[in-house]
Amino acid sequence: MLCVGLDVDLAKIPQYLLDGEDPIFTFNKAIIDATHQYAVAYKPNTAFYEAHGLKGWQSLQKTIDYLNAEYPEIFTIADAKRGDIGNTSRMYAKAFLEDMCFDSITVAPYMGKDSVEPFLSFDEKYAILLALTSNAGAFDFQTKTSEDEELYKKVLKTSQEWQGSDKLMYVVGATKAEFFAQIRKIIPHAFLLVPGIGAQGGDLASVCEFGMNDQAGLFINSSRGIIYASNGEDYAQAAAREAGNLQAQMAQILSARFN
Amino acid sequence: MLCVGLDVDLAKIPQYLLDGEDPIFTFNKAIIDATHQYAVAYKPNTAFYEAHGLKGWQSLQKTIDYLNAEYPEIFTIADAKRGDIGNTSRMYAKAFLEDMCFDSITVAPYMGKDSVEPFLSFDEKYAILLALTSNAGAFDFQTKTSEDEELYKKVLKTSQEWQGSDKLMYVVGATKAEFFAQIRKIIPHAFLLVPGIGAQGGDLASVCEFGMNDQAGLFINSSRGIIYASNGEDYAQAAAREAGNLQAQMAQILSARFN
Repeated sequence: MLCVGLDVDLAKIPQYLLDGEDPIFTFNKAIIDATHQYAVAYKPNTAFYEAHGLKGWQSLQKTIDYLNAEYPEIFTIADAKRGDIGNTSRMYAKAFLEDMCFDSITVAPYMGKDSVEPFLSFDEKYAILLALTSNAGAFDFQTKTSEDEELYKKVLKTSQEWQGSDKLMYVVGATKAEFFAQIRKIIPHAFLLVPGIGAQGGDLASVCEFGMNDQAGLFINSSRGIIYASNGEDYAQAAAREAGNLQAQMAQILSARFN
Repeated sequence: MLCVGLDVDLAKIPQYLLDGEDPIFTFNKAIIDATHQYAVAYKPNTAFYEAHGLKGWQSLQKTIDYLNAEYPEIFTIADAKRGDIGNTSRMYAKAFLEDMCFDSITVAPYMGKDSVEPFLSFDEKYAILLALTSNAGAFDFQTKTSEDEELYKKVLKTSQEWQGSDKLMYVVGATKAEFFAQIRKIIPHAFLLVPGIGAQGGDLASVCEFGMNDQAGLFINSSRGIIYASNGEDYAQAAAREAGNLQAQMAQILSARFN
């Protein structure tokens, strides 16, 4: 179930890497090589790449190319949180799903059906809709009651009626484990991408207890807790150790549930 | 009040430009030079640039650099519709407002306060929050009643309480002119960015009637109607003519209101 978030902050990676030509890609490659045996998915957040302009965009391209070439079985997520009017969403969908060849992209629901459907028209590609996010601001709108139900529930229900909804997954923050049982009543089968484990304080066991379906159905993301486990020369090994620990906890939970 | 949307689709620009080295920038430069006397703002939608990967990103950088160097008095809007957890929004804010030097960026509200505030901490830079968008999907969630008021009204009210809210503007689609009066009751002073005039069918006169405040307070965006006025060699002159027409209509409305 482990998804590793590749949110690379140049201030937090081993500083000797900055002397190289493409420190972000060098860092990602080492992290991926060291952790791939524990991970089912990688999720670069595009903000961390766009922050470096052209060079960052190049590092992102090299990272997804490397993942697709070396580990084609691993699921890739562009954590881009895009969403715009139809003809514009189509541009984003093409950029991330077709040209860069990500398997999926995160999408913001505020603009509704025609802003999301363009992401759902690619074979074996997925859109991961923000439902209930892991940050404090989630309580500003997402949990407000709208026509007798909270906005995030309306997002879940309404989006299930959109064309291509079999290609929809949802972001549900780990910091809100108590919501998972209600969410699973609405979308029993959909995959959930769960950020917020680790640095943001989410609890793995309760997320799994309430969030798993009969096929597990979860990508549990950890970014900072894994990739910044050390900022010395052993950063890749340290990341592997953290990823391995988390994966072992997941394996234990899965085996208790499914054996 | 005229904002020109630089949503450059290679299939729609004069095809002889494709032989050049950077057709997107060449097109933008000609459009900007021909229309700047009628425009107060330019708004590239980032999707149209990201769709071309590294090359597109480069064209966007050249476009904003050109605007800042040649027409520093003109307001620039990165129509990026970003929004993420706090430390990630900060990355986007830095990328667009500081590094690329846009004056403003459009931001999606779904993730709430801590996803928007990072965009509000730059001197003389602005975040333009999606309130009521111009597309059909706007009616999926934005107009649903939440705790006795529609979601977009809650977005308007709640966001006015956030730190730096004096740097907030709002996207309100021109296709929803009947909503402007209610919106102006909630935010009488904020600037509104109004897409949807022209190709999307919005009506200028009624937008102005209900949307203007005592300082006008509107950016009225037109993209396709101006930049694709011709796809022959006269494309820049044709764009100037359309921009000039629209600006003349605006001038007439403004003079009727303020004289």
